[in-house]
Amino acid sequence: MSRSRCAGLYAIVLCVLLGGWVSASYAAADRDKLLSEPGIYGTFAAFGLTEEWGRLDAPAKIAHLTALKGVVEQHREKVAIDLYLLRGLSDHADVLFRIHAADLRDSQKFLVDLHASPMGRYLKGAGVLNGMSKKANYVPGFPDQMKADLKTASEPGPVPYAIVIPIRKSAEWWALDQEKRAVMMKEHTEAALPYHKTVKRKLYHSSGLDDLDFITYFETSNLEDFHNLILSLEKVKEFQYTRRFGHPTLLGTSKSLDQLIETLAQ
Amino acid sequence: MSRSRCAGLYAIVLCVLLGGWVSASYAAADRDKLLSEPGIYGTFAAFGLTEEWGRLDAPAKIAHLTALKGVVEQHREKVAIDLYLLRGLSDHADVLFRIHAADLRDSQKFLVDLHASPMGRYLKGAGVLNGMSKKANYVPGFPDQMKADLKTASEPGPVPYAIVIPIRKSAEWWALDQEKRAVMMKEHTEAALPYHKTVKRKLYHSSGLDDLDFITYFETSNLEDFHNLILSLEKVKEFQYTRRFGHPTLLGTSKSLDQLIETLAQ
Amino acid sequence: MSRSRCAGLYAIVLCVLLGGWVSASYAAADRDKLLSEPGIYGTFAAFGLTEEWGRLDAPAKIAHLTALKGVVEQHREKVAIDLYLLRGLSDHADVLFRIHAADLRDSQKFLVDLHASPMGRYLKGAGVLNGMSKKANYVPGFPDQMKADLKTASEPGPVPYAIVIPIRKSAEWWALDQEKRAVMMKEHTEAALPYHKTVKRKLYHSSGLDDLDFITYFETSNLEDFHNLILSLEKVKEFQYTRRFGHPTLLGTSKSLDQLIETLAQ
Amino acid sequence: MSRSRCAGLYAIVLCVLLGGWVSASYAAADRDKLLSEPGIYGTFAAFGLTEEWGRLDAPAKIAHLTALKGVVEQHREKVAIDLYLLRGLSDHADVLFRIHAADLRDSQKFLVDLHASPMGRYLKGAGVLNGMSKKANYVPGFPDQMKADLKTASEPGPVPYAIVIPIRKSAEWWALDQEKRAVMMKEHTEAALPYHKTVKRKLYHSSGLDDLDFITYFETSNLEDFHNLILSLEKVKEFQYTRRFGHPTLLGTSKSLDQLIETLAQ
Amino acid sequence: MSRSRCAGLYAIVLCVLLGGWVSASYAAADRDKLLSEPGIYGTFAAFGLTEEWGRLDAPAKIAHLTALKGVVEQHREKVAIDLYLLRGLSDHADVLFRIHAADLRDSQKFLVDLHASPMGRYLKGAGVLNGMSKKANYVPGFPDQMKADLKTASEPGPVPYAIVIPIRKSAEWWALDQEKRAVMMKEHTEAALPYHKTVKRKLYHSSGLDDLDFITYFETSNLEDFHNLILSLEKVKEFQYTRRFGHPTLLGTSKSLDQLIETLAQ
Repeated sequence: MSRSRCAGLYAIVLCVLLGGWVSASYAAADRDKLLSEPGIYGTFAAFGLTEEWGRLDAPAKIAHLTALKGVVEQHREKVAIDLYLLRGLSDHADVLFRIHAADLRDSQKFLVDLHASPMGRYLKGAGVLNGMSKKANYVPGFPDQMKADLKTASEPGPVPYAIVIPIRKSAEWWALDQEKRAVMMKEHTEAALPYHKTVKRKLYHSSGLDDLDFITYFETSNLEDFHNLILSLEKVKEFQYTRRFGHPTLLGTSKSLDQLIETLAQ
Repeated sequence: MSRSRCAGLYAIVLCVLLGGWVSASYAAADRDKLLSEPGIYGTFAAFGLTEEWGRLDAPAKIAHLTALKGVVEQHREKVAIDLYLLRGLSDHADVLFRIHAADLRDSQKFLVDLHASPMGRYLKGAGVLNGMSKKANYVPGFPDQMKADLKTASEPGPVPYAIVIPIRKSAEWWALDQEKRAVMMKEHTEAALPYHKTVKRKLYHSSGLDDLDFITYFETSNLEDFHNLILSLEKVKEFQYTRRFGHPTLLGTSKSLDQLIETLAQ
Repeated sequence: MSRSRCAGLYAIVLCVLLGGWVSASYAAADRDKLLSEPGIYGTFAAFGLTEEWGRLDAPAKIAHLTALKGVVEQHREKVAIDLYLLRGLSDHADVLFRIHAADLRDSQKFLVDLHASPMGRYLKGAGVLNGMSKKANYVPGFPDQMKADLKTASEPGPVPYAIVIPIRKSAEWWALDQEKRAVMMKEHTEAALPYHKTVKRKLYHSSGLDDLDFITYFETSNLEDFHNLILSLEKVKEFQYTRRFGHPTLLGTSKSLDQLIETLAQ
Repeated sequence: MSRSRCAGLYAIVLCVLLGGWVSASYAAADRDKLLSEPGIYGTFAAFGLTEEWGRLDAPAKIAHLTALKGVVEQHREKVAIDLYLLRGLSDHADVLFRIHAADLRDSQKFLVDLHASPMGRYLKGAGVLNGMSKKANYVPGFPDQMKADLKTASEPGPVPYAIVIPIRKSAEWWALDQEKRAVMMKEHTEAALPYHKTVKRKLYHSSGLDDLDFITYFETSNLEDFHNLILSLEKVKEFQYTRRFGHPTLLGTSKSLDQLIETLAQ
Repeated sequence: MSRSRCAGLYAIVLCVLLGGWVSASYAAADRDKLLSEPGIYGTFAAFGLTEEWGRLDAPAKIAHLTALKGVVEQHREKVAIDLYLLRGLSDHADVLFRIHAADLRDSQKFLVDLHASPMGRYLKGAGVLNGMSKKANYVPGFPDQMKADLKTASEPGPVPYAIVIPIRKSAEWWALDQEKRAVMMKEHTEAALPYHKTVKRKLYHSSGLDDLDFITYFETSNLEDFHNLILSLEKVKEFQYTRRFGHPTLLGTSKSLDQLIETLAQ
């Protein structure tokens, strides 16, 4: 929180609130495991703030955000929660929660408690997407050089932007045999490799868990690279087997819980 | 209801409410028959809770939920009612009622009474799907081994997750003769068999009763198996004759009436 | 109205209200003509009840329903009005008015007066479909036996269920010459004949009057027969020229005005 | 306004209001020119009345309608305004304004002033369509007899019904050369000629001004003729190049400003 | 602001408000660079005004608009903001902000601050589109004469109208090799050249940043020329590779901040 904003009575309260919890925020689920292992469920829950929220005064907002913080902290033992500010960049939604859990019921419990919290009545559901992480399907058959390239680390530093694009493949895609799909996925991966360092990707499988086949999640500090990556992927053959791409495309900025609270408290 | 929550005045009232009705809850319609016989109507009614609900205090919520419980009990002689919590996992709906009745008017009467109850004004209709159970269409022509496999019992134990996927076939599907459809349904069934023990399925026929041809209902404790089952079904030829699959896909967790009341009372 | 419900002050008022008008309800438009002749306009107007309705107390509801009854009675000289309860069985609508008139302006006048009545502000428009009755197009060319079969009377007795399915044909259908369409409509009619006695049908032509080509209206006491009828119609060649079938499918139960008032007064 | 309704205090006020302005209503834009010349912009703005409107008492409604009348009168120098009552016959909209102006900014100014008037807060936008009149594209190449037939005057007398149907052609249509399109438009015109006397048509070009290529506007006293006209147009080859036809189809009745005010004042 | 409107107490206050800021409005971001260089992000944010806005009295409106002006001024160092009045000409939106920034986070910050301002609670998000400017893709390969023609300046004078049309190309388009696309884009450009002087165009690339591939933005004082330009573009081969064109098409009039404030203050 910038110093210049820590003035005025409620701003001070907010500063204390934001600061006071920092120490607790690392007693949490094994976040690294949840974000890297297969068999983990990912839920993307987008919310708009109701019109009523805008009419609350600062102390009421801070009280509700304190409760929100409490709910997040309370569930951190079982779920990994990432937060994004969509307001201004995406339609009809203001915030996005990305929730990882080994058991999807834990994600539901967090969202039910969020809804039941004092903050809940100001949050209007704007869409939920469910998927799960799985072992890479086509990578094992890729050439060694490609496998090595895929293991290169991303560029260090903050990655302010996050983009979520749901995908549904056509029936024709699934009717192809595994080998034909592997050839096309190799072309897909080749097209994506030049952006591997600047655009981080994560894939969730959704068939049956939602009206989708995949949720693709991207993080980047370079939106132009990300745009060029998507453009490259639109040009490979596999893209012709895509029936839905986006709808919605969720574009936002990564925020820590404290940053998000600071924004919402305004 | 967990002991730790049975504290405080209204929580105690809620505990009594939840407990006091348990004894009555088995004087009900012949549930087994309704869930297994052909010619039974299945109605899936999804509801969201209005914003107003979130503003009620605990005693008001408990009073309304008591009335809800009364309505459910009162109709149990004629209809079998299952309850699901969708909140957090599905868009725009919080709870789902699955209602089985030999006469669809009895399902309507239950839903009309639910609406007219004090709880009704906090329930916002989020979709209704109608279907009916029928004798298996293609199974009689399947090989004996397959028939035997289909009779294997599911794995015992609780099945916390339920998924509802509405399906509409293309005009091309219905234009095929019965034999060609039977061949494809055999392939479909073969693809599904490996998941027979861990994913329970029930099929409802909807043509004319709704903008659908089928409602497919799944119960499982293993969502990854369920996901892999759907993935297998997407790969068989019959899937290419599917015009609508989902929209919505309803994913939730099975709840007893008491569990659901406990969640909503928060 | 069942006797058991005629207890309590407002229930008695309601009983008197429902009873007191019965004698007047037959001084009406030539209903038989409006429902059987060509050149008559049919309007299907579906309404949801607003959330506010649920908050009214019994005397207010009865006062508004009395006014509703007055509006219906007042227009009965010019229009034939049928009522259906959709609540619980169809999405987003609670009641359906089917209005027949020789002059569509009379249907509009009724609906405008309904809206202007005290009840009007609790009715939320949930869709209007317009069509007109016309002389049978293909029947004159059918074999004599088929014509005779089509004249067989329906089974007597109450037909509690009504279903409305809007249809839009493809441009390819209209591009076919009349003879080819006649051949397919003969196959369509043959497929429907087995259900002629238990499922009553009425066809409305809508091209230009709405985003449709036809409104198909069904009445039955046997929903399984109705479902099998639709399944049979999906299998004939003509169905492949159907671009929209349903969306919405309206499924409800026929109600007299008094029955509907009794239900809404709850 | 019918005499029988001119009773009661506010009804009298309404009568005076409606009468008092009649004399002024002809000091207006050169309506004939705006409705017949090419290069004129046509805007179709549909509105629903908010739920709040239904709760106003008669004097408040009359005060707001007086203001509405004032806004219409004030803009009549620059725009030609036609009014239609959609309520009861079309989904989600109650009234329709058809506005013709040589400069589209004048139409916008009228609608902005309408919105800013006391009536504005009870009007909920339900859709705007923009188009412009142009010289006939294909008629110059038609045979002389057809040209003469197209010049025949419509039958005299009131034309109570108006229908608006938006149209989008397929990319294939626009890819055809002008000559091929002309041949099909001649067939289209031949199919329409039998209805020339009883159904008046006006065409607006919309490409770029809206998500449409054309707005087709019809006036008739004979809805069956209109329906048969559309049916004939669905059967010609050109119709196969139509991607959107309706959605919405707006069907309503023509009203003078005074008639509309009388209806809304109820 | 026209003199005739500068009468009455609040109108005077409004005049002062509008005048008092003019001097400051040029201390801003390097607007020319942001509007002409590649690598700049363009965000189109459309808003409707809530029903509540219409109920505010003049001093409240002016207070909120003063705050709106403050937010715009405050962000002018980093973002270039253009304003458009959509009301009356486009569905469901009243105003449009076009925001250019070298860093998309600055656009988000502006929109977040706008939302947090007193005006924010009267603005209902009606859609956001994101894109970025890039170097011309096909122009370098065009003949010299065409390149020269494209450099001709637009006609001077005010360009009151602005139109935004989102575009999504088909997978088939992206599957074509660059050369084939270049041939078609040359034909596209030839069709557009006759309108180069009277219709100004700007292209934004959106793949991945939104459910689009392009946002096309037009400014003109001659709507008929603009319409004819679109008609010409619909006739070239490249148009057949367009899957979405519009939806929404946003048509409005350019306004300075002061003009927009004056309109909204009514």
